[in-house]
Amino acid sequence: MRIDALQYCNFSREIFQQMNQGGVHAVHVTIAYHENFRETVANIEHWNRWFEQYPDLIFQGRWARCVETAKATGRTAIFFGFQNPSPIEDDIGLVEILHSLGARFMQLSYNNQSLLATGCYEANDPGITRMGREVIAEMNRVGLVIDMSHSAERSTLEAIELSSRPIAITHANPGFWEPALRNKSDAVLKALGESGGMLGFSMYPHHLKGKGDCTLDSFCQMVADTAELMGVDHIGWGSDLCQDQPDSVVEWMRVGRWTKKVDYGEGSKSAPGFPAMPSWFADNRDFGNVEAGLLAVGFSHADVAKIMGGNWHRFFESSFGPATA
Amino acid sequence: MRIDALQYCNFSREIFQQMNQGGVHAVHVTIAYHENFRETVANIEHWNRWFEQYPDLIFQGRWARCVETAKATGRTAIFFGFQNPSPIEDDIGLVEILHSLGARFMQLSYNNQSLLATGCYEANDPGITRMGREVIAEMNRVGLVIDMSHSAERSTLEAIELSSRPIAITHANPGFWEPALRNKSDAVLKALGESGGMLGFSMYPHHLKGKGDCTLDSFCQMVADTAELMGVDHIGWGSDLCQDQPDSVVEWMRVGRWTKKVDYGEGSKSAPGFPAMPSWFADNRDFGNVEAGLLAVGFSHADVAKIMGGNWHRFFESSFGPATA
Repeated sequence: MRIDALQYCNFSREIFQQMNQGGVHAVHVTIAYHENFRETVANIEHWNRWFEQYPDLIFQGRWARCVETAKATGRTAIFFGFQNPSPIEDDIGLVEILHSLGARFMQLSYNNQSLLATGCYEANDPGITRMGREVIAEMNRVGLVIDMSHSAERSTLEAIELSSRPIAITHANPGFWEPALRNKSDAVLKALGESGGMLGFSMYPHHLKGKGDCTLDSFCQMVADTAELMGVDHIGWGSDLCQDQPDSVVEWMRVGRWTKKVDYGEGSKSAPGFPAMPSWFADNRDFGNVEAGLLAVGFSHADVAKIMGGNWHRFFESSFGPATA
Repeated sequence: MRIDALQYCNFSREIFQQMNQGGVHAVHVTIAYHENFRETVANIEHWNRWFEQYPDLIFQGRWARCVETAKATGRTAIFFGFQNPSPIEDDIGLVEILHSLGARFMQLSYNNQSLLATGCYEANDPGITRMGREVIAEMNRVGLVIDMSHSAERSTLEAIELSSRPIAITHANPGFWEPALRNKSDAVLKALGESGGMLGFSMYPHHLKGKGDCTLDSFCQMVADTAELMGVDHIGWGSDLCQDQPDSVVEWMRVGRWTKKVDYGEGSKSAPGFPAMPSWFADNRDFGNVEAGLLAVGFSHADVAKIMGGNWHRFFESSFGPATA
């Protein structure tokens, strides 16, 4: 079973075919960066058309068992998520509405301060806000997973503490390997693992040691070191694959509507666009490369199966339904 | 000239007549607590109907000279403002759009954390956010006044520092007189006065010493003490008059859509609704009482004229137009 817990490609029949060829049974796709509720619904409508057009390749995933269906029928289950709480606007009631529409992951903040939590680009992080505490409880109730991939340290630790259910960091790497602003401290990773949460390793070049030149061996050794730190049951993939996107999309991701200036985010003035992917992970057909890389650094077949998808599948099973008393 | 820099009444012809009878030439009215852009536009449409229905009593104020027109024609100029940045959503471009529609004041936060700044009910205040810095510059550029009435201390001090133009606290009192969460520290009041900003004194009972039992003498003595602290040129009225509002409205103000629980704000479980106003300020006809009260505690006629409206009029003159190079 292969699961990727974060992609934001410029999706097409070609990419869905690559998912199929790569044996990827489930993908968590981003359907909102800065979109408000109505705009998010429009993005769901867009996906509904793809589901209607390509039923041989993809269908909407709502529950863990959809991954099993995908595997049994040779297709990919697509799970929706948001990189920002913008789809719920200021309205806690939209948490349940969006879960009903299939949302399964929501970041409490993107790079900036949100109404709920602080993003990793802010100078100061006061932790989870008043509304954030209410929304965490509501997400716990309905089964919408808290994702802190882009959030700042204190907010992340508080979210782990406040949430009654395990949370996720769907796409990031450990800071001990590559000290990018988006990568996570040992303290966060330990707390995440101890609370039953999940980390998805990112193949996005800005999160890699050496960026696009990162070697597969270095990447897989980092996975092994992280397994030591937080447990082999709490890690998986969250590739952050942004295949075929024009650079205007990364500008939307970074700038949204919040500034009139250019914000380069993880990029720079000389390299404002999407960075080149590492040679060993260009698209969904390359999961075999990382699987081989894990075996090469000494992981057992059983542990490789967990990392490739088993861990995320178990997490989906306990996370997407309503809270049990 | 009499100016009130904050009212949120359940407005009606009767209240507009009382403004007329009280000789109130300008009122800054709240048209958004939690409303998004579209909902705010609907509230403007509502006001447009009142302007069309009651041209003998009110008209939309856009510039300081509208206050002079109001005085000359025996009417009241109504200036629009927001108690929360919710009308601009996450879109800096809406600052100019809303200024074009007549918005003249915008609080950077209400009681909670916003995308821009922190509210006074949050446990922690990290100061002005990344988006907040951008929006302050844009508000300075177009002439939308920054109002920090409900904001927390650090955010308020940073807003004063970051803003290139004087800011306002349209409705609050000094904490040295009544240590309510919403009232302001000496440090804030001094920084506000030194930067050319304005404080509007609130007659809302939760901001008064003794609440609805507050005496006019105590209130006016507090005004005198504040004039000592921040200068007699930087104070005026911001009554926070919420006349004729049902208690459901104070619940909307406090709870909005951010929680499923009840939040009592400045009230309590035993007193959840609007508090009773002090006997000496029940409606717009009572500005004569506070004028007499100021004279009774020793203010000169010249200083009384400043506090009653002259100071706000001067502030309007320099604040509502685009920034000059």
